[in-house]
Amino acid sequence: MKEATGQVRVIIEGLNPEIDGGRFPIKRVIGERVVVEADIFADGHDSISALLLYRNENNPGWSETPMELLVNDRWRGSFVVAELGCYLYTILAWVDLFKSWRRDLARKFQAGQEVSIELLIGVQLITEASQRASVAEGKMMGEWASTLQSTQVAEQVKIQLALSEEVLEVMDKYADRQFATTYPKELIAAVDREKALFSTWYEMFPRSCAPEPERYGTLKDCEARLPYVAAMGFDVLYFPPIHPIGLSHRKGRNNNPVANPDDPGTPWAIGSKEGGHKSIHPQLGSLQDFQSFVARAREYGIEIALDIAFQCSPDHPYVKEHPEWFRWRPDNTVQYAENPPKKYEDIYPFEFETKNWKQLWEELKSIVLFWIEQGIRIFRVDNPHTKPFRFWEWLTTDIKKSYPDVIFLSEAFTRPKVMHQLTKLGFTQSYTYFAWRNTKRELTQYFTELTQTEIREYFRPNLWPNTPDILTEYLQFGGRPAFMARLVLAATLGASYGIYGPAFELCDNHPKEPGSEEYLDSEKYEIKNWGITRPDSLKDFIARVNQVRRENPALHSDWSLRFHKVDNEQLICYSKRTEDLSNVVLVVVNLDPHHTQSGWVEFPLEELGIDPQKPYQMHDLLSDSRYLWQGSRNYVELNSQIVPAHVFRMRRRVRTERDFDYYM
Amino acid sequence: MKEATGQVRVIIEGLNPEIDGGRFPIKRVIGERVVVEADIFADGHDSISALLLYRNENNPGWSETPMELLVNDRWRGSFVVAELGCYLYTILAWVDLFKSWRRDLARKFQAGQEVSIELLIGVQLITEASQRASVAEGKMMGEWASTLQSTQVAEQVKIQLALSEEVLEVMDKYADRQFATTYPKELIAAVDREKALFSTWYEMFPRSCAPEPERYGTLKDCEARLPYVAAMGFDVLYFPPIHPIGLSHRKGRNNNPVANPDDPGTPWAIGSKEGGHKSIHPQLGSLQDFQSFVARAREYGIEIALDIAFQCSPDHPYVKEHPEWFRWRPDNTVQYAENPPKKYEDIYPFEFETKNWKQLWEELKSIVLFWIEQGIRIFRVDNPHTKPFRFWEWLTTDIKKSYPDVIFLSEAFTRPKVMHQLTKLGFTQSYTYFAWRNTKRELTQYFTELTQTEIREYFRPNLWPNTPDILTEYLQFGGRPAFMARLVLAATLGASYGIYGPAFELCDNHPKEPGSEEYLDSEKYEIKNWGITRPDSLKDFIARVNQVRRENPALHSDWSLRFHKVDNEQLICYSKRTEDLSNVVLVVVNLDPHHTQSGWVEFPLEELGIDPQKPYQMHDLLSDSRYLWQGSRNYVELNSQIVPAHVFRMRRRVRTERDFDYYM
Repeated sequence: MKEATGQVRVIIEGLNPEIDGGRFPIKRVIGERVVVEADIFADGHDSISALLLYRNENNPGWSETPMELLVNDRWRGSFVVAELGCYLYTILAWVDLFKSWRRDLARKFQAGQEVSIELLIGVQLITEASQRASVAEGKMMGEWASTLQSTQVAEQVKIQLALSEEVLEVMDKYADRQFATTYPKELIAAVDREKALFSTWYEMFPRSCAPEPERYGTLKDCEARLPYVAAMGFDVLYFPPIHPIGLSHRKGRNNNPVANPDDPGTPWAIGSKEGGHKSIHPQLGSLQDFQSFVARAREYGIEIALDIAFQCSPDHPYVKEHPEWFRWRPDNTVQYAENPPKKYEDIYPFEFETKNWKQLWEELKSIVLFWIEQGIRIFRVDNPHTKPFRFWEWLTTDIKKSYPDVIFLSEAFTRPKVMHQLTKLGFTQSYTYFAWRNTKRELTQYFTELTQTEIREYFRPNLWPNTPDILTEYLQFGGRPAFMARLVLAATLGASYGIYGPAFELCDNHPKEPGSEEYLDSEKYEIKNWGITRPDSLKDFIARVNQVRRENPALHSDWSLRFHKVDNEQLICYSKRTEDLSNVVLVVVNLDPHHTQSGWVEFPLEELGIDPQKPYQMHDLLSDSRYLWQGSRNYVELNSQIVPAHVFRMRRRVRTERDFDYYM
Repeated sequence: MKEATGQVRVIIEGLNPEIDGGRFPIKRVIGERVVVEADIFADGHDSISALLLYRNENNPGWSETPMELLVNDRWRGSFVVAELGCYLYTILAWVDLFKSWRRDLARKFQAGQEVSIELLIGVQLITEASQRASVAEGKMMGEWASTLQSTQVAEQVKIQLALSEEVLEVMDKYADRQFATTYPKELIAAVDREKALFSTWYEMFPRSCAPEPERYGTLKDCEARLPYVAAMGFDVLYFPPIHPIGLSHRKGRNNNPVANPDDPGTPWAIGSKEGGHKSIHPQLGSLQDFQSFVARAREYGIEIALDIAFQCSPDHPYVKEHPEWFRWRPDNTVQYAENPPKKYEDIYPFEFETKNWKQLWEELKSIVLFWIEQGIRIFRVDNPHTKPFRFWEWLTTDIKKSYPDVIFLSEAFTRPKVMHQLTKLGFTQSYTYFAWRNTKRELTQYFTELTQTEIREYFRPNLWPNTPDILTEYLQFGGRPAFMARLVLAATLGASYGIYGPAFELCDNHPKEPGSEEYLDSEKYEIKNWGITRPDSLKDFIARVNQVRRENPALHSDWSLRFHKVDNEQLICYSKRTEDLSNVVLVVVNLDPHHTQSGWVEFPLEELGIDPQKPYQMHDLLSDSRYLWQGSRNYVELNSQIVPAHVFRMRRRVRTERDFDYYM
């Protein structure tokens, strides 16, 4: 037993947020708040003081902020993170003898009891505290003590002094913390840059960017495509792998097991005699072209995201240079990827159970570092759930130590606990089940889970209505209205979202075959000429939606999401808001791509900062129309064939009806 | 990084039960089951094997039991605790290459694929495992390997062997655990004797046991009272403190601040010149009398529980011998107990913040040990929430190390988190809010919380409808039917319950004043002559209820409690059952002490082991009447003025209607 054990009386438990007992950090971006709650209590009836302690890991000293009792022994405090990297936080709490004394003195005095002895106890407490105080404050405290024990001072005056805020403040400052309880763990908040939370992605195959049909697109062609992407309002442009593509077992068009000589192969079959993960496919251009392209994109406010796919084509140089990184079969062939009875003979997975795992890990990290040196800070990681968790934890932690601005997006479409584990251990963002959540019930349940449970502390959703692997039935059958509805849902339910284009803006809805989610003539296996100037493109609508996102801070984060009642199963309604309610966005989407749907939406006005007694303005930011609403129940009607959604900004009336524009 | 880090692939998390990250043990009694669940998964698609490991702390070797996959990466295993003391449990899991291979082989074979190379991989796996096997099994495995690679054996035969249960079993036994994940914590199950879970308490003031009015009852009188207590079916007899009582500031009748010379004082004002916590009040008898009484009680199947009240009267020898164990005020008086503006000048609390806390702790422990040496193994601890948590953790842990059969009942009527903390850190049982939960809604909510949430892992409720401090309004106004209803509720909702008698069985319902929960002429301050032979005593009813408890194992634990629907707010219905459904008890209580109430009860027949197509017998164990019911909805009617409850044993029909007694 330590010397003070017996005198330490406060219990701190049930701390929140604390992921798996502190095993994993919570995630924040710069400027976000960390709200910490805990059960804090002691034996008996004494008063307690509690502090939330926090610091950036590079800062040796703790900052302190007082915690407040809510109810039922639950306390709360908060701080805002201001720098990249890791913050630590913990709690300190103690039985506060001065506060107990102050409270009891007041009660006794009010009950008309004799308090002269109590005042002398106060003198003791103040005198003790003064020994911990600055010279100036110590002197002042000495004077208070003198007053409290002076026979010349009226009791009324003494009581007034003893209970004064001034004395309380100074006594708080020099409180006796010698028997304080420190919460036994220092918890971690991993702080990313803002784009980790709010980002707008566009996925594009660079080889399909040539203006002429059939020609292999180059990075130069991609440069020419930048204004198009920028005009739609995207700030992350993500490329599937840009490395040399293997020839052995190369897949032909529509995933044909036999390729024609002119088939370009899938970019995920990485590696040929022309190089591996640190090389660029020669037909795309040179490393210099790439650097120039990245720089040009930056001028448009666009960051380039690369694909990290840790797997090899049979022709990858690693296969010969490092046979020990692969699993060999008794017939001296390398084990290809498979999910029996399916075989993927054009892909060799790495054998992570190799004895040379350390060397393998280091090499894979060097790939990421190589592209970081080319100016890349965002990586979309292909199938991370098929490589060991410990590897990812090591890789992401190690990279972020040197490059805290790096963002890793986990492309793990798998079981929930596996997806969650990956983001707990280091991935910055994650793909979600959004593509398969289409009904009001599904969307409400899923996004309530993602934004209102502990999952939100570590899982940052990135919503994709489509990807090169996913053309959902909803998009296949719903046509253009479905694409519009899914775009609005992705862009407003998720602070981060992305589309795979131009397939998306051109509403490509042809599946490989009925029941399949694969695209017909998928760009994964061939070069496409999209014809992006088609008049029916959604590009202007997308540009509008992304502009609304940029201009409305309520849409820059996810935790404020609340779903509201509508008396029509085909209409979904939800809101997001800033902490100060200066920006409140209410979205209504018609989930039925075929019919006009109408209904009454209902939401808690006061929670959203609206005076229920007054009319308020609903400004539809998509159509720029304005509606005057009143009360918590209002009528909406959405024709899917025109625009299947309202994205309202709620505006309180600040002046009178004389000037219709006077809404803020 | 450790050598194997990179090859360890399984994640084990979300283990349950695990209290506060393993900080506290779960509680069980001998014979109870520990069901352990966890999320267990790895990267990729490989099969996993998982074992639940457990051992008594005195046993160096782990026992193993396989865990099974439920759904969504959740696994479950269980074990039964057989000995007193602490069990440890944890989980071991690994990627099972043999099981993965076996599964994939089956798939490939079913798909008609070529599997000759796969069979050779199997040979490798079996050969490797044979090196870990016994000589005999190793030889057999060698033969299997030969068969699988023999060119003389038909493929069909090889497949049959490779997929056989026999091979699987042996391969399981010698599985390759070198890259296994061990859950990083060893969790603790603290195992008590059965009485910790199932106990029936009777509280009695020994000084009120004299047959003649006014005479101070002695331990000899208590001996004479034993048959009375035993006849009612109680197995724990609890005495308020039996120590010398202080004179200074002694309280008179009805808590009068001034006592008459003949007032006996409250037993909780412990200590006088005649001794302290290790002494017996001289008027009760000698230590020898006490020992003889304890032995006599044992003959009746009754254990004596003593009160541990760590506080002193101003006359306690400690005050002079150890002034440093008390808090002194500036006027050189000892700080008495207070809750401003209330003062309790007859009670000096110990000053646990004293520098001599170690000495104080040791002395307090020696009090418990003293009574243990007198044969006492059950202690009801008075107001533990006003002494430091760390003290209780040390005391209970230390005592249980030497005396694992000791039971501590926590008398903490305070905020929920404080009550929970006390039981987490070592108290065996706890008083509850039962006395103040009277409506159907309150009872349902509270007992669902206590029996269906994590709380049940460490909090064992002990239900008291009354205590010397608590005469609830429900009892005050409800009269005899209220006492009967509350008795049945306590005795069937709680595996442990108790009453303060004879006040309870004699239905004493006179409060000190309107609005007070204190008894008028409370036994705390005076000697009572109860007249226990009164014809209106509930003693026979209590005896019946306690007999039903003893004879029905479903009532010996709490976790099986389920509430069922009744279409009348005044009727509450619930059931308890044994794991094997051999004993199912269904209780219906009329909560309205004034009127007859009737309604339709509804419960899930199949869950309770009843064939919904057949009639079944409801045997009311209180009245010994039998009802033939059918279906899940049945009518009940309870007249409070007769008996306000049914305690049914449900009996399945096992033969035919020819013999009415043939129900089991």
